[in-house]
Amino acid sequence: MTDLLAYGREVLALQPFSAMIGAQLDVFEAGTAQLTLPVKPELLQQDGFVHGGVLAYLADNCLTYAGGSVLGKVLTSEFKINYIRPAHSAQRLVAVATVVGSGKTQAVCRCDVFLERDGERKLCAAAQGTIRKAD
Amino acid sequence: MTDLLAYGREVLALQPFSAMIGAQLDVFEAGTAQLTLPVKPELLQQDGFVHGGVLAYLADNCLTYAGGSVLGKVLTSEFKINYIRPAHSAQRLVAVATVVGSGKTQAVCRCDVFLERDGERKLCAAAQGTIRKAD
Amino acid sequence: MTDLLAYGREVLALQPFSAMIGAQLDVFEAGTAQLTLPVKPELLQQDGFVHGGVLAYLADNCLTYAGGSVLGKVLTSEFKINYIRPAHSAQRLVAVATVVGSGKTQAVCRCDVFLERDGERKLCAAAQGTIRKAD
Amino acid sequence: MTDLLAYGREVLALQPFSAMIGAQLDVFEAGTAQLTLPVKPELLQQDGFVHGGVLAYLADNCLTYAGGSVLGKVLTSEFKINYIRPAHSAQRLVAVATVVGSGKTQAVCRCDVFLERDGERKLCAAAQGTIRKAD
Repeated sequence: MTDLLAYGREVLALQPFSAMIGAQLDVFEAGTAQLTLPVKPELLQQDGFVHGGVLAYLADNCLTYAGGSVLGKVLTSEFKINYIRPAHSAQRLVAVATVVGSGKTQAVCRCDVFLERDGERKLCAAAQGTIRKAD
Repeated sequence: MTDLLAYGREVLALQPFSAMIGAQLDVFEAGTAQLTLPVKPELLQQDGFVHGGVLAYLADNCLTYAGGSVLGKVLTSEFKINYIRPAHSAQRLVAVATVVGSGKTQAVCRCDVFLERDGERKLCAAAQGTIRKAD
Repeated sequence: MTDLLAYGREVLALQPFSAMIGAQLDVFEAGTAQLTLPVKPELLQQDGFVHGGVLAYLADNCLTYAGGSVLGKVLTSEFKINYIRPAHSAQRLVAVATVVGSGKTQAVCRCDVFLERDGERKLCAAAQGTIRKAD
Repeated sequence: MTDLLAYGREVLALQPFSAMIGAQLDVFEAGTAQLTLPVKPELLQQDGFVHGGVLAYLADNCLTYAGGSVLGKVLTSEFKINYIRPAHSAQRLVAVATVVGSGKTQAVCRCDVFLERDGERKLCAAAQGTIRKAD
Protein backbone atom coordinates (compact mmCIF):
# COMPACT_ATOMS: atom_id res chain seq x y z
CA MET A 1 0.00 0.00 0.00
CA THR A 2 1.41 3.37 -0.96
CA ASP A 3 1.67 6.19 1.54
CA LEU A 4 -0.89 8.16 -0.49
CA LEU A 5 -3.43 5.34 -0.31
CA ALA A 6 -2.81 4.92 3.43
CA TYR A 7 -3.34 8.66 3.91
CA GLY A 8 -6.49 8.62 1.79
CA ARG A 9 -7.92 5.78 3.85
CA GLU A 10 -7.19 7.66 7.05
CA VAL A 11 -9.14 10.65 5.73
CA LEU A 12 -12.03 8.42 4.68
CA ALA A 13 -12.09 6.82 8.12
CA LEU A 14 -12.41 10.33 9.59
CA GLN A 15 -15.60 10.98 7.57
CA PRO A 16 -18.46 9.74 9.75
CA PHE A 17 -20.82 9.83 6.76
CA SER A 18 -18.54 7.64 4.64
CA ALA A 19 -18.15 5.23 7.55
CA MET A 20 -21.92 5.00 7.97
CA ILE A 21 -22.39 4.35 4.26
CA GLY A 22 -19.49 1.89 4.18
CA ALA A 23 -17.35 3.28 1.35
CA GLN A 24 -13.85 1.93 0.85
CA LEU A 25 -10.92 3.55 -0.93
CA ASP A 26 -9.22 1.05 -3.24
CA VAL A 27 -7.06 3.24 -5.43
CA PHE A 28 -5.56 6.66 -4.73
CA GLU A 29 -2.75 7.62 -7.06
CA ALA A 30 -1.71 10.79 -8.84
CA GLY A 31 -4.61 11.55 -11.17
CA THR A 32 -7.01 8.78 -10.17
CA ALA A 33 -9.07 7.30 -7.35
CA GLN A 34 -11.42 4.36 -6.90
CA LEU A 35 -14.05 3.94 -4.21
CA THR A 36 -16.16 0.83 -3.74
CA LEU A 37 -19.32 0.43 -1.78
CA PRO A 38 -20.92 -2.87 -0.76
CA VAL A 39 -24.67 -2.50 -1.24
CA LYS A 40 -26.78 -2.96 1.89
CA PRO A 41 -30.52 -2.48 2.45
CA GLU A 42 -30.11 0.94 4.11
CA LEU A 43 -28.77 2.35 0.85
CA LEU A 44 -31.90 1.67 -1.22
CA GLN A 45 -34.90 3.74 -2.22
CA GLN A 46 -38.56 2.70 -2.46
CA ASP A 47 -38.19 0.51 -5.58
CA GLY A 48 -35.22 -1.44 -4.27
CA PHE A 49 -32.64 0.45 -6.31
CA VAL A 50 -29.64 2.06 -4.69
CA HIS A 51 -30.77 5.61 -3.88
CA GLY A 52 -29.61 8.23 -6.39
CA GLY A 53 -28.23 10.18 -3.45
CA VAL A 54 -25.84 7.32 -2.72
CA LEU A 55 -24.55 7.38 -6.29
CA ALA A 56 -24.20 11.17 -6.00
CA TYR A 57 -22.30 10.80 -2.70
CA LEU A 58 -19.99 8.23 -4.27
CA ALA A 59 -19.33 10.37 -7.36
CA ASP A 60 -18.76 13.49 -5.23
CA ASN A 61 -16.30 11.73 -2.96
CA CYS A 62 -14.44 9.95 -5.74
CA LEU A 63 -14.11 13.17 -7.78
CA THR A 64 -12.75 14.87 -4.67
CA TYR A 65 -10.16 12.14 -4.11
CA ALA A 66 -9.07 12.33 -7.75
CA GLY A 67 -8.66 16.10 -7.50
CA GLY A 68 -6.92 15.78 -4.14
CA SER A 69 -4.45 13.31 -5.62
CA VAL A 70 -2.91 16.16 -7.64
CA LEU A 71 -3.78 19.22 -5.55
CA GLY A 72 -3.39 18.16 -1.90
CA LYS A 73 -6.03 19.45 0.50
CA VAL A 74 -9.13 20.28 -1.53
CA LEU A 75 -12.77 21.29 -1.60
CA THR A 76 -15.37 20.23 -4.14
CA SER A 77 -16.62 23.26 -6.06
CA GLU A 78 -19.32 21.57 -8.08
CA PHE A 79 -20.22 18.49 -10.03
CA LYS A 80 -22.95 17.10 -12.24
CA ILE A 81 -24.14 13.54 -12.47
CA ASN A 82 -26.15 11.73 -15.15
CA TYR A 83 -27.97 8.60 -14.05
CA ILE A 84 -27.73 5.98 -16.77
CA ARG A 85 -29.44 2.90 -15.37
CA PRO A 86 -31.05 2.05 -12.03
CA ALA A 87 -28.69 0.23 -9.68
CA HIS A 88 -30.93 -2.72 -8.85
CA SER A 89 -29.80 -6.10 -7.52
CA ALA A 90 -26.26 -4.76 -7.31
CA GLN A 91 -23.87 -6.35 -4.86
CA ARG A 92 -21.35 -3.57 -5.04
CA LEU A 93 -20.85 -0.12 -6.56
CA VAL A 94 -17.47 0.92 -7.92
CA ALA A 95 -16.62 4.56 -8.66
CA VAL A 96 -13.56 5.40 -10.73
CA ALA A 97 -12.50 9.03 -11.13
CA THR A 98 -9.71 10.60 -13.16
CA VAL A 99 -8.31 14.08 -13.56
CA VAL A 100 -8.86 15.33 -17.10
CA GLY A 101 -7.23 18.72 -16.63
CA SER A 102 -5.59 20.56 -13.77
CA GLY A 103 -3.83 23.81 -12.95
CA LYS A 104 -2.35 25.25 -9.76
CA THR A 105 -5.64 25.79 -7.98
CA GLN A 106 -8.22 23.48 -9.51
CA ALA A 107 -8.74 20.20 -11.31
CA VAL A 108 -11.51 19.05 -13.62
CA CYS A 109 -12.33 15.40 -13.03
CA ARG A 110 -14.65 12.76 -14.42
CA CYS A 111 -16.11 9.80 -12.61
CA ASP A 112 -17.83 6.61 -13.77
CA VAL A 113 -19.99 4.74 -11.27
CA PHE A 114 -20.48 1.07 -12.03
CA LEU A 115 -22.73 -1.52 -10.47
CA GLU A 116 -21.47 -5.05 -10.01
CA ARG A 117 -23.96 -7.90 -10.24
CA ASP A 118 -22.95 -11.52 -10.43
CA GLY A 119 -19.47 -10.67 -11.62
CA GLU A 120 -20.72 -8.32 -14.33
CA ARG A 121 -19.96 -4.58 -14.29
CA LYS A 122 -22.34 -1.99 -15.78
CA LEU A 123 -22.11 1.79 -15.92
CA CYS A 124 -24.92 3.31 -13.88
CA ALA A 125 -23.87 6.95 -13.61
CA ALA A 126 -21.39 9.40 -15.15
CA ALA A 127 -20.20 12.52 -13.34
CA GLN A 128 -17.95 15.49 -13.98
CA GLY A 129 -16.85 18.25 -11.65
CA THR A 130 -14.39 20.81 -10.36
CA ILE A 131 -12.17 20.29 -7.34
CA ARG A 132 -10.19 23.20 -5.97
CA LYS A 133 -7.28 23.57 -3.62
CA ALA A 134 -8.33 24.53 -0.10
CA ASP A 135 -6.87 27.89 0.95
CA MET B 1 -51.97 18.06 5.57
CA THR B 2 -52.80 17.65 1.87
CA ASP B 3 -53.16 14.23 0.29
CA LEU B 4 -50.14 14.97 -1.87
CA LEU B 5 -47.97 15.72 1.16
CA ALA B 6 -49.22 12.59 2.93
CA TYR B 7 -48.39 10.53 -0.16
CA GLY B 8 -44.97 12.13 -0.46
CA ARG B 9 -44.18 11.33 3.17
CA GLU B 10 -45.22 7.72 2.62
CA VAL B 11 -42.78 7.44 -0.28
CA LEU B 12 -40.01 9.02 1.78
CA ALA B 13 -40.68 6.57 4.60
CA LEU B 14 -40.24 3.74 2.09
CA GLN B 15 -36.72 4.95 1.21
CA PRO B 16 -34.40 3.21 3.65
CA PHE B 17 -31.58 5.62 2.78
CA SER B 18 -33.70 8.69 3.54
CA ALA B 19 -34.83 7.12 6.80
CA MET B 20 -31.22 6.42 7.81
CA ILE B 21 -30.21 10.00 7.00
CA GLY B 22 -33.30 11.41 8.71
CA ALA B 23 -34.79 13.60 5.97
CA GLN B 24 -38.30 15.01 6.42
CA LEU B 25 -40.70 16.23 3.76
CA ASP B 26 -42.25 19.55 4.81
CA VAL B 27 -43.78 20.85 1.61
CA PHE B 28 -45.00 18.91 -1.44
CA GLU B 29 -47.27 20.93 -3.71
CA ALA B 30 -47.66 21.32 -7.46
CA GLY B 31 -44.35 22.80 -8.57
CA THR B 32 -42.47 22.79 -5.30
CA ALA B 33 -41.07 20.66 -2.49
CA GLN B 34 -39.15 21.22 0.72
CA LEU B 35 -37.05 18.70 2.62
CA THR B 36 -35.40 19.34 5.95
CA LEU B 37 -32.65 17.42 7.63
CA PRO B 38 -31.60 17.71 11.26
CA VAL B 39 -27.80 17.58 11.34
CA LYS B 40 -26.31 14.75 13.36
CA PRO B 41 -22.67 13.64 13.78
CA GLU B 42 -22.99 10.76 11.29
CA LEU B 43 -23.60 13.23 8.47
CA LEU B 44 -20.27 15.06 8.77
CA GLN B 45 -16.92 14.79 7.01
CA GLN B 46 -13.42 15.05 8.45
CA ASP B 47 -13.50 18.81 9.11
CA GLY B 48 -16.82 18.76 10.93
CA PHE B 49 -18.84 20.10 7.97
CA VAL B 50 -21.88 18.27 6.68
CA HIS B 51 -20.53 15.93 3.98
CA GLY B 52 -20.99 17.23 0.44
CA GLY B 53 -22.61 13.92 -0.39
CA VAL B 54 -25.38 14.70 2.09
CA LEU B 55 -26.04 18.02 0.40
CA ALA B 56 -26.05 16.22 -2.95
CA TYR B 57 -28.47 13.60 -1.62
CA LEU B 58 -30.76 16.33 -0.31
CA ALA B 59 -30.68 18.29 -3.58
CA ASP B 60 -31.26 15.12 -5.63
CA ASN B 61 -34.22 14.07 -3.55
CA CYS B 62 -35.77 17.52 -3.36
CA LEU B 63 -35.42 18.06 -7.13
CA THR B 64 -37.08 14.68 -7.65
CA TYR B 65 -40.01 15.59 -5.40
CA ALA B 66 -40.46 18.91 -7.19
CA GLY B 67 -40.52 17.15 -10.58
CA GLY B 68 -42.80 14.44 -9.23
CA SER B 69 -45.25 17.06 -8.00
CA VAL B 70 -46.12 17.85 -11.62
CA LEU B 71 -45.28 14.59 -13.42
CA GLY B 72 -46.35 11.79 -11.06
CA LYS B 73 -44.03 8.80 -10.81
CA VAL B 74 -40.58 9.96 -11.87
CA LEU B 75 -36.89 9.24 -12.20
CA THR B 76 -34.04 11.68 -11.85
CA SER B 77 -32.16 12.02 -15.14
CA GLU B 78 -29.37 14.27 -13.97
CA PHE B 79 -28.49 17.21 -11.83
CA LYS B 80 -25.61 19.50 -11.00
CA ILE B 81 -24.78 21.07 -7.69
CA ASN B 82 -22.57 24.02 -6.79
CA TYR B 83 -21.29 24.14 -3.24
CA ILE B 84 -21.37 27.72 -2.00
CA ARG B 85 -20.22 27.57 1.61
CA PRO B 86 -19.30 24.74 3.98
CA ALA B 87 -22.20 23.63 6.19
CA HIS B 88 -20.44 23.88 9.54
CA SER B 89 -22.11 24.21 12.92
CA ALA B 90 -25.48 23.85 11.22
CA GLN B 91 -28.40 22.57 13.25
CA ARG B 92 -30.54 21.83 10.25
CA LEU B 93 -30.42 21.79 6.45
CA VAL B 94 -33.40 22.95 4.41
CA ALA B 95 -33.73 22.18 0.71
CA VAL B 96 -36.31 24.02 -1.39
CA ALA B 97 -36.90 22.98 -4.99
CA THR B 98 -39.13 24.45 -7.68
CA VAL B 99 -40.08 23.50 -11.21
CA VAL B 100 -38.82 26.12 -13.65
CA GLY B 101 -40.14 24.44 -16.79
CA SER B 102 -42.01 21.26 -17.59
CA GLY B 103 -43.54 19.35 -20.48
CA LYS B 104 -45.35 16.01 -20.72
CA THR B 105 -42.35 13.85 -19.98
CA GLN B 106 -39.83 15.92 -18.09
CA ALA B 107 -39.37 18.86 -15.78
CA VAL B 108 -36.40 21.13 -15.19
CA CYS B 109 -36.08 22.05 -11.53
CA ARG B 110 -33.86 24.16 -9.33
CA CYS B 111 -33.03 23.61 -5.68
CA ASP B 112 -31.50 25.80 -2.99
CA VAL B 113 -29.97 24.10 0.05
CA PHE B 114 -29.75 26.28 3.14
CA LEU B 115 -28.07 25.71 6.47
CA GLU B 116 -29.75 26.91 9.62
CA ARG B 117 -27.56 28.06 12.51
CA ASP B 118 -28.90 29.86 15.54
CA GLY B 119 -32.03 30.96 13.74
CA GLU B 120 -30.12 32.28 10.74
CA ARG B 121 -30.47 30.74 7.26
CA LYS B 122 -27.64 30.77 4.70
CA LEU B 123 -27.45 29.32 1.22
CA CYS B 124 -24.87 26.54 1.13
CA ALA B 125 -25.57 24.88 -2.24
CA ALA B 126 -27.47 25.51 -5.47
CA ALA B 127 -28.60 22.70 -7.75
CA GLN B 128 -30.40 22.27 -11.08
CA GLY B 129 -31.57 19.13 -12.81
CA THR B 130 -33.91 17.15 -15.01
CA ILE B 131 -36.65 14.89 -13.70
CA ARG B 132 -38.51 12.64 -16.10
CA LYS B 133 -41.69 10.67 -15.97
CA ALA B 134 -41.15 6.97 -15.26
CA ASP B 135 -42.36 4.77 -18.12
CA MET C 1 -25.89 54.92 -17.97
CA THR C 2 -23.69 53.87 -15.06
CA ASP C 3 -19.94 53.63 -15.42
CA LEU C 4 -20.16 49.88 -14.88
CA LEU C 5 -22.63 49.46 -17.74
CA ALA C 6 -20.50 51.65 -20.01
CA TYR C 7 -17.46 49.53 -19.14
CA GLY C 8 -19.37 46.32 -19.74
CA ARG C 9 -20.49 47.51 -23.15
CA GLU C 10 -16.92 48.40 -24.05
CA VAL C 11 -15.81 44.87 -23.18
CA LEU C 12 -18.66 43.37 -25.20
CA ALA C 13 -17.72 45.55 -28.18
CA LEU C 14 -14.19 44.11 -27.93
CA GLN C 15 -15.53 40.53 -28.31
CA PRO C 16 -15.59 39.88 -32.07
CA PHE C 17 -17.82 36.84 -31.53
CA SER C 18 -20.41 38.82 -29.58
CA ALA C 19 -20.36 41.53 -32.23
CA MET C 20 -20.93 38.96 -34.99
CA ILE C 21 -23.83 37.44 -33.07
CA GLY C 22 -25.24 40.85 -32.20
CA ALA C 23 -25.58 40.60 -28.42
CA GLN C 24 -26.33 43.76 -26.43
CA LEU C 25 -25.68 44.44 -22.75
CA ASP C 26 -28.73 46.06 -21.17
CA VAL C 27 -28.08 45.70 -17.46
CA PHE C 28 -24.77 45.37 -15.61
CA GLU C 29 -25.02 46.06 -11.90
CA ALA C 30 -23.54 44.52 -8.77
CA GLY C 31 -24.94 40.99 -8.75
CA THR C 32 -26.83 40.96 -12.03
CA ALA C 33 -26.55 41.32 -15.80
CA GLN C 34 -28.89 41.20 -18.77
CA LEU C 35 -27.98 40.52 -22.38
CA THR C 36 -30.42 40.71 -25.27
CA LEU C 37 -30.05 39.30 -28.73
CA PRO C 38 -32.19 40.20 -31.73
CA VAL C 39 -32.86 36.96 -33.62
CA LYS C 40 -31.63 36.87 -37.20
CA PRO C 41 -31.57 34.01 -39.73
CA GLU C 42 -27.86 33.26 -39.21
CA LEU C 43 -28.59 32.22 -35.62
CA LEU C 44 -30.94 29.36 -36.48
CA GLN C 45 -30.53 25.61 -36.86
CA GLN C 46 -32.11 23.26 -39.40
CA ASP C 47 -35.66 23.40 -37.99
CA GLY C 48 -35.80 27.17 -37.79
CA PHE C 49 -35.20 27.34 -34.04
CA VAL C 50 -32.44 29.46 -32.58
CA HIS C 51 -29.43 27.12 -32.39
CA GLY C 52 -28.82 25.66 -28.94
CA GLY C 53 -25.25 26.89 -29.23
CA VAL C 54 -26.55 30.46 -29.38
CA LEU C 55 -28.51 29.95 -26.17
CA ALA C 56 -25.40 28.43 -24.62
CA TYR C 57 -23.28 31.38 -25.77
CA LEU C 58 -25.81 33.81 -24.32
CA ALA C 59 -26.01 31.97 -20.99
CA ASP C 60 -22.20 31.68 -20.78
CA ASN C 61 -21.68 35.35 -21.46
CA CYS C 62 -24.45 36.54 -19.17
CA LEU C 63 -23.24 34.32 -16.30
CA THR C 64 -19.76 35.75 -16.82
CA TYR C 65 -21.03 39.33 -16.67
CA ALA C 66 -22.97 38.58 -13.50
CA GLY C 67 -19.87 37.08 -11.88
CA GLY C 68 -17.71 39.93 -13.15
CA SER C 69 -20.09 42.44 -11.62
CA VAL C 70 -18.93 41.35 -8.16
CA LEU C 71 -15.43 39.98 -8.85
CA GLY C 72 -13.89 42.30 -11.46
CA LYS C 73 -11.85 40.61 -14.19
CA VAL C 74 -13.04 37.02 -14.45
CA LEU C 75 -12.97 33.72 -16.27
CA THR C 76 -15.82 31.24 -16.65
CA SER C 77 -14.93 27.97 -14.92
CA GLU C 78 -17.95 25.98 -15.96
CA PHE C 79 -21.68 26.07 -16.48
CA LYS C 80 -24.60 23.81 -17.28
CA ILE C 81 -27.65 24.62 -19.32
CA ASN C 82 -31.04 22.94 -19.53
CA TYR C 83 -33.05 23.60 -22.67
CA ILE C 84 -36.69 24.02 -21.76
CA ARG C 85 -38.46 24.85 -25.02
CA PRO C 86 -37.29 25.41 -28.60
CA ALA C 87 -36.77 29.09 -29.41
CA HIS C 88 -38.89 29.23 -32.55
CA SER C 89 -40.42 32.35 -34.11
CA ALA C 90 -38.66 34.43 -31.48
CA GLN C 91 -37.92 38.05 -32.26
CA ARG C 92 -35.48 38.47 -29.43
CA LEU C 93 -33.73 36.48 -26.71
CA VAL C 94 -33.20 37.96 -23.28
CA ALA C 95 -30.76 36.45 -20.77
CA VAL C 96 -30.88 37.51 -17.14
CA ALA C 97 -28.20 36.30 -14.73
CA THR C 98 -27.80 36.80 -11.01
CA VAL C 99 -25.16 35.92 -8.44
CA VAL C 100 -26.53 33.43 -5.92
CA GLY C 101 -23.38 33.15 -3.83
CA SER C 102 -19.89 34.60 -3.97
CA GLY C 103 -16.62 34.64 -2.10
CA LYS C 104 -13.26 36.32 -2.73
CA THR C 105 -12.31 34.26 -5.73
CA GLN C 106 -15.46 32.85 -7.27
CA ALA C 107 -19.17 33.39 -7.73
CA VAL C 108 -21.98 30.93 -8.40
CA CYS C 109 -24.53 32.42 -10.78
CA ARG C 110 -27.81 31.44 -12.37
CA CYS C 111 -29.17 32.57 -15.70
CA ASP C 112 -32.62 32.41 -17.31
CA VAL C 113 -32.84 32.73 -21.08
CA PHE C 114 -36.20 33.93 -22.37
CA LEU C 115 -37.57 34.17 -25.87
CA GLU C 116 -39.74 37.13 -26.80
CA ARG C 117 -42.47 36.57 -29.37
CA ASP C 118 -45.18 39.13 -30.07
CA GLY C 119 -44.67 40.85 -26.76
CA GLU C 120 -44.81 37.61 -24.78
CA ARG C 121 -41.81 36.29 -22.83
CA LYS C 122 -41.20 32.57 -22.26
CA LEU C 123 -38.38 30.76 -20.50
CA CYS C 124 -36.44 28.67 -23.01
CA ALA C 125 -33.32 27.73 -21.05
CA ALA C 126 -32.00 27.73 -17.49
CA ALA C 127 -28.28 27.78 -16.68
CA GLN C 128 -26.04 27.72 -13.63
CA GLY C 129 -22.28 28.08 -13.38
CA THR C 130 -19.10 29.17 -11.66
CA ILE C 131 -17.22 32.36 -12.49
CA ARG C 132 -13.81 32.93 -10.96
CA LYS C 133 -11.54 35.91 -10.56
CA ALA C 134 -8.78 36.05 -13.17
CA ASP C 135 -5.34 35.85 -11.59
CA MET D 1 -17.78 8.50 -46.95
CA THR D 2 -20.52 6.59 -45.16
CA ASP D 3 -24.18 7.42 -45.70
CA LEU D 4 -24.44 8.47 -42.08
CA LEU D 5 -21.60 10.96 -42.43
CA ALA D 6 -23.09 12.32 -45.67
CA TYR D 7 -26.44 12.75 -43.92
CA GLY D 8 -24.82 14.42 -40.91
CA ARG D 9 -23.02 16.89 -43.18
CA GLU D 10 -26.28 17.72 -44.92
CA VAL D 11 -27.89 18.52 -41.57
CA LEU D 12 -24.90 20.66 -40.57
CA ALA D 13 -25.11 22.55 -43.87
CA LEU D 14 -28.77 23.30 -43.06
CA GLN D 15 -27.77 25.00 -39.79
CA PRO D 16 -27.16 28.65 -40.66
CA PHE D 17 -25.40 29.20 -37.34
CA SER D 18 -22.96 26.33 -37.93
CA ALA D 19 -22.30 27.60 -41.43
CA MET D 20 -21.57 31.11 -40.12
CA ILE D 21 -19.18 29.72 -37.52
CA GLY D 22 -17.58 27.35 -40.03
CA ALA D 23 -17.90 23.99 -38.24
CA GLN D 24 -17.17 20.81 -40.16
CA LEU D 25 -18.31 17.27 -39.41
CA ASP D 26 -15.41 14.84 -39.74
CA VAL D 27 -16.71 11.71 -38.04
CA PHE D 28 -20.30 10.53 -37.55
CA GLU D 29 -20.58 6.86 -36.65
CA ALA D 30 -22.70 4.84 -34.24
CA GLY D 31 -21.70 6.16 -30.82
CA THR D 32 -19.33 8.91 -31.82
CA ALA D 33 -18.94 12.21 -33.68
CA GLN D 34 -16.16 14.69 -34.38
CA LEU D 35 -16.52 18.32 -35.36
CA THR D 36 -13.65 20.60 -36.28
CA LEU D 37 -13.60 24.35 -36.45
CA PRO D 38 -10.90 26.47 -38.08
CA VAL D 39 -10.28 29.44 -35.81
CA LYS D 40 -10.92 32.85 -37.37
CA PRO D 41 -10.86 36.34 -35.80
CA GLU D 42 -14.66 36.56 -35.53
CA LEU D 43 -14.65 33.67 -33.04
CA LEU D 44 -12.50 35.40 -30.42
CA GLN D 45 -13.22 37.37 -27.25
CA GLN D 46 -11.51 40.48 -25.90
CA ASP D 47 -8.26 38.76 -24.87
CA GLY D 48 -7.74 37.00 -28.18
CA PHE D 49 -8.93 33.60 -26.93
CA VAL D 50 -11.66 31.69 -28.72
CA HIS D 51 -14.89 32.82 -27.03
CA GLY D 52 -16.21 30.37 -24.43
CA GLY D 53 -19.54 30.50 -26.24
CA VAL D 54 -17.86 29.01 -29.31
CA LEU D 55 -16.50 26.11 -27.25
CA ALA D 56 -19.98 25.67 -25.76
CA TYR D 57 -21.57 25.70 -29.23
CA LEU D 58 -19.07 23.11 -30.42
CA ALA D 59 -19.62 20.85 -27.41
CA ASP D 60 -23.40 21.19 -27.68
CA ASN D 61 -23.42 20.33 -31.36
CA CYS D 62 -20.95 17.46 -31.06
CA LEU D 63 -22.84 15.92 -28.11
CA THR D 64 -26.02 16.17 -30.18
CA TYR D 65 -24.42 14.41 -33.14
CA ALA D 66 -23.12 11.64 -30.89
CA GLY D 67 -26.58 11.13 -29.39
CA GLY D 68 -28.20 11.32 -32.81
CA SER D 69 -25.86 8.62 -34.10
CA VAL D 70 -27.68 6.08 -31.93
CA LEU D 71 -31.14 7.65 -31.50
CA GLY D 72 -31.97 9.22 -34.90
CA LYS D 73 -33.69 12.61 -34.81
CA VAL D 74 -32.86 14.21 -31.47
CA LEU D 75 -32.97 17.25 -29.23
CA THR D 76 -30.39 18.31 -26.69
CA SER D 77 -31.87 18.23 -23.19
CA GLU D 78 -28.96 19.68 -21.31
CA PHE D 79 -25.22 19.70 -20.99
CA LYS D 80 -22.46 21.07 -18.81
CA ILE D 81 -19.05 22.24 -19.84
CA ASN D 82 -15.85 22.78 -17.85
CA TYR D 83 -13.30 25.13 -19.37
CA ILE D 84 -9.84 23.76 -18.79
CA ARG D 85 -7.49 26.16 -20.54
CA PRO D 86 -7.98 29.27 -22.68
CA ALA D 87 -7.95 28.54 -26.41
CA HIS D 88 -5.36 31.09 -27.45
CA SER D 89 -3.27 31.03 -30.61
CA ALA D 90 -5.20 27.97 -31.74
CA GLN D 91 -5.41 27.22 -35.44
CA ARG D 92 -8.22 24.77 -35.09
CA LEU D 93 -10.61 23.32 -32.50
CA VAL D 94 -11.53 19.66 -32.54
CA ALA D 95 -14.50 18.28 -30.59
CA VAL D 96 -14.87 14.55 -30.07
CA ALA D 97 -18.03 13.17 -28.47
CA THR D 98 -18.97 9.64 -27.48
CA VAL D 99 -22.08 7.96 -26.11
CA VAL D 100 -21.41 6.59 -22.63
CA GLY D 101 -24.89 5.17 -22.04
CA SER D 102 -28.11 5.05 -24.00
CA GLY D 103 -31.65 3.70 -23.80
CA LYS D 104 -34.64 3.93 -26.12
CA THR D 105 -35.30 7.61 -25.61
CA GLN D 106 -32.10 9.23 -24.45
CA ALA D 107 -28.33 9.02 -24.51
CA VAL D 108 -25.73 10.36 -22.12
CA CYS D 109 -22.68 11.61 -23.98
CA ARG D 110 -19.32 13.12 -23.19
CA CYS D 111 -17.31 15.50 -25.31
CA ASP D 112 -13.68 16.64 -25.26
CA VAL D 113 -12.81 19.90 -27.02
CA PHE D 114 -9.17 20.21 -28.05
CA LEU D 115 -7.23 23.12 -29.44
CA GLU D 116 -4.62 22.52 -32.12
CA ARG D 117 -1.57 24.76 -32.20
CA ASP D 118 1.49 24.04 -34.33
CA GLY D 119 0.62 20.38 -34.64
CA GLU D 120 0.06 19.95 -30.91
CA ARG D 121 -3.34 19.06 -29.44
CA LYS D 122 -4.43 20.16 -25.96
CA LEU D 123 -7.67 19.64 -24.09
CA CYS D 124 -9.39 22.96 -23.54
CA ALA D 125 -12.88 21.92 -22.42
CA ALA D 126 -14.75 18.84 -21.21
CA ALA D 127 -18.52 18.48 -21.55
CA GLN D 128 -21.23 15.99 -20.64
CA GLY D 129 -24.92 16.01 -21.48
CA THR D 130 -28.20 14.33 -22.29
CA ILE D 131 -29.58 13.94 -25.81
CA ARG D 132 -33.12 12.71 -26.27
CA LYS D 133 -35.09 11.34 -29.16
CA ALA D 134 -37.36 13.94 -30.79
CA ASP D 135 -41.02 12.98 -30.54
